Amino acid sequence: MKPSIPKGTRDFSSTEVAKRNYLKNVLQNAFELIGFQPIETPSFEKSATLLGKYGEEGDRLIFKILSNGEKLKKADLKALSENRLGAFSSSLSEKALRYDLTVPFARYVVQHQNEIVFPFKRYQIQPVWRADRPQHGRFQEFFQCDADVVGSDSLWQEVELCHLYERVFSSLGIQGVTLKINNRKILAGIVEVMGVADQLIEFTVALDKLDKIGYEGVIKELQDKKFPATAIDKISILISLNGTPKQRLNQLANFLSESSIGLEGVKEVSFVIDQLTALEVNKINFSIDVTLARGLNYYTGCIFEVAPPQGVKMGSIGGGGRYDNLTAGFGMKNMSGVGISFGFDRIYLVLEELNLFPESVQNQTQVLCLNLDEETAFIGNQFVIQLRASGICTEFYPDTVKIKKQLSYANQRQIPWVILIGQEEQETKTILLKNMASGEQEKLSISEALETLARRLS
Amino acid sequence: MKPSIPKGTRDFSSTEVAKRNYLKNVLQNAFELIGFQPIETPSFEKSATLLGKYGEEGDRLIFKILSNGEKLKKADLKALSENRLGAFSSSLSEKALRYDLTVPFARYVVQHQNEIVFPFKRYQIQPVWRADRPQHGRFQEFFQCDADVVGSDSLWQEVELCHLYERVFSSLGIQGVTLKINNRKILAGIVEVMGVADQLIEFTVALDKLDKIGYEGVIKELQDKKFPATAIDKISILISLNGTPKQRLNQLANFLSESSIGLEGVKEVSFVIDQLTALEVNKINFSIDVTLARGLNYYTGCIFEVAPPQGVKMGSIGGGGRYDNLTAGFGMKNMSGVGISFGFDRIYLVLEELNLFPESVQNQTQVLCLNLDEETAFIGNQFVIQLRASGICTEFYPDTVKIKKQLSYANQRQIPWVILIGQEEQETKTILLKNMASGEQEKLSISEALETLARRLS
Repeated sequence: MKPSIPKGTRDFSSTEVAKRNYLKNVLQNAFELIGFQPIETPSFEKSATLLGKYGEEGDRLIFKILSNGEKLKKADLKALSENRLGAFSSSLSEKALRYDLTVPFARYVVQHQNEIVFPFKRYQIQPVWRADRPQHGRFQEFFQCDADVVGSDSLWQEVELCHLYERVFSSLGIQGVTLKINNRKILAGIVEVMGVADQLIEFTVALDKLDKIGYEGVIKELQDKKFPATAIDKISILISLNGTPKQRLNQLANFLSESSIGLEGVKEVSFVIDQLTALEVNKINFSIDVTLARGLNYYTGCIFEVAPPQGVKMGSIGGGGRYDNLTAGFGMKNMSGVGISFGFDRIYLVLEELNLFPESVQNQTQVLCLNLDEETAFIGNQFVIQLRASGICTEFYPDTVKIKKQLSYANQRQIPWVILIGQEEQETKTILLKNMASGEQEKLSISEALETLARRLS
Repeated sequence: MKPSIPKGTRDFSSTEVAKRNYLKNVLQNAFELIGFQPIETPSFEKSATLLGKYGEEGDRLIFKILSNGEKLKKADLKALSENRLGAFSSSLSEKALRYDLTVPFARYVVQHQNEIVFPFKRYQIQPVWRADRPQHGRFQEFFQCDADVVGSDSLWQEVELCHLYERVFSSLGIQGVTLKINNRKILAGIVEVMGVADQLIEFTVALDKLDKIGYEGVIKELQDKKFPATAIDKISILISLNGTPKQRLNQLANFLSESSIGLEGVKEVSFVIDQLTALEVNKINFSIDVTLARGLNYYTGCIFEVAPPQGVKMGSIGGGGRYDNLTAGFGMKNMSGVGISFGFDRIYLVLEELNLFPESVQNQTQVLCLNLDEETAFIGNQFVIQLRASGICTEFYPDTVKIKKQLSYANQRQIPWVILIGQEEQETKTILLKNMASGEQEKLSISEALETLARRLS
């Protein structure tokens, strides 16, 4: 029986790893260019660190690690017999796999608060695990990729994170990305103006569905939820915002003129938009989107979400925002922060779909030296070592099998150059250099061959 | 209560991640230079893939993942009551965390045999997990780093792997590394000459302890194990091998002249040593070490182990060898391979001890722009964006706090350059550039400042 891997997990081939590393490197370089520093946390945390942080559904999706040896005797059989499976599993486990990077980051900040220099700008690119039912495009193991700053409430951080999004997507060559911006204070202002200030969550849950169910659908949902007609009447303005971000913000300011919190939200977003415009950070589009909520109870200020280029059918490829209570769950209050994440797997798919992975990522080995016979193998290896010393990725075919088979290896591995050193070349101290794409062959001296390859592969 | 992480796991600070990434990059570059391609496998595998592959002790040290939800009802309570904890845990778990990279690699080769181009040269750098009792320098989560070739029994592969070791340690600047070489066939020849061909394992287990218990100790252990005196008498020659690798191999060939398998082993090692010498792969030392066994039942040909420079107190920092049965456990026979591994954490410690991490690895952010007041912040950010566009890692201090505090941030973060743009600079369109190490300050025009920083940081 052929072996296989668990559902929802993936093997990555050489080509896939090379592409993933390319994406990871672009992200890392952009993070570091902007002053974010990497940290890494363990794959598993103490259960107490993770459980209860993601709601009931989240707790169920956390992979727990079975205790070893004698500890298994602590199994809570009473809980099992009473069908309290959560309690039963807790009795068998003290550790669990990381579910996201946010909670481990909060834990890290509190645990290492005396070593950290604040404001602390950290990035983290690591796998997370979720016991979600596997389905197309949803995996049990996947990368998350977060950049956060904690310890400063300056709006320059929001500006900087927008700049970071711009850097990454322009470095990747993805054009037409849109960064949607909203602010929790704007949403709070809207419900205040509507006269339903205590129904912020219900309102935003409905509004968030605008894309899916349309304006009529949102109205219906608000009616079903018993929002007063006078309140519902007021929201038409939100749907009809138009023009540039600046114009939309002006329309919003008019609508929110009676709400001080709403106006504060408009002012925050205006600051960010104004600076980005003046700084000419314009390789991605910015749009004001009041329907954006993203698990609102988490965010306290600006909210971001990145939409892929039009024409690419895919959900958001990034998002984030300002929060004020990241570390409260670990007993450290008033630690303001703002962070964004990048949807690693989805950005990978966008790069695939738009054919944006550089060709150089895909063929790492640049030269294959054929192995014709035992006598010439040594000369071949000498040359191979010289090529490697010049930084050219080179392989020597290990076995003296038929040339056809060796050339087929070069073809299948997409190695662009092949060198042959046979008896004749040995005698004349030359090298036969073959371009695999064109089939062209040249007979060159060793130094000519080195120079030619170095030039063509640079 | 301050949060913490499970025993045996580690948080990595920015400096540590930067250093680890440096080491990882050197390894990756060397692997790819020599034509090894990366693969990645999932963190967890099906239990059936892992269990039974590492012996009883290994099985106990594998981290099992607790099944979710209803599957917990399959708990084998009878096994628990009979204290068969292995069976109990198996009933609660279908997946387990990777214990090493070798078994997942074997599984990968068999599963993807129709997509792989053989000979298949793969490298893999990923974490593995072991439920070992944590102690100084031993972790439950750590990186493994392997390079293997399967599908060729050419000795050129052994030569290439030795070249790989040389490349890595010379790239890292670690001098005085010794690569010890042995061959299972030499060991088989020795027991044949001693007349105890069926006691290969007992013999090598004793010989392997030479470093620890000395010659007398080894003799005593062999006596305790009832090796005949005539056999024991013969091994003094092994201890007294001397001279260059080539001379030692000659002495061994004499000793093994009656054993065809032993002579074959000598011939294999001689081939490797001869080629390395002729190819001038000489930035590490090579030594013939007949006491080297490394879990012998695994290896079938050459055996390698890397010792750190003399003076660094540490065990081996790498090892590997030729095997013939990697994939047999998954039903694919006669897949010859040879592979080596690098001890990531130990090499890291060697680099620390010898102070070999490049300084550039440690301070990523090169310039901090101070934030003096709201008016000049925009000009500062304009300059920051220009610096970043030139590839200089630059931060803007987000808050308008006292200059002293901002300079202290630069100091603690070890940022080498600070720029100030105050009212005066704004009026005269200049920038004050401060070298944090020397304290020197220069007043420069914007283009001068850009040019100066680009030059000094290149």
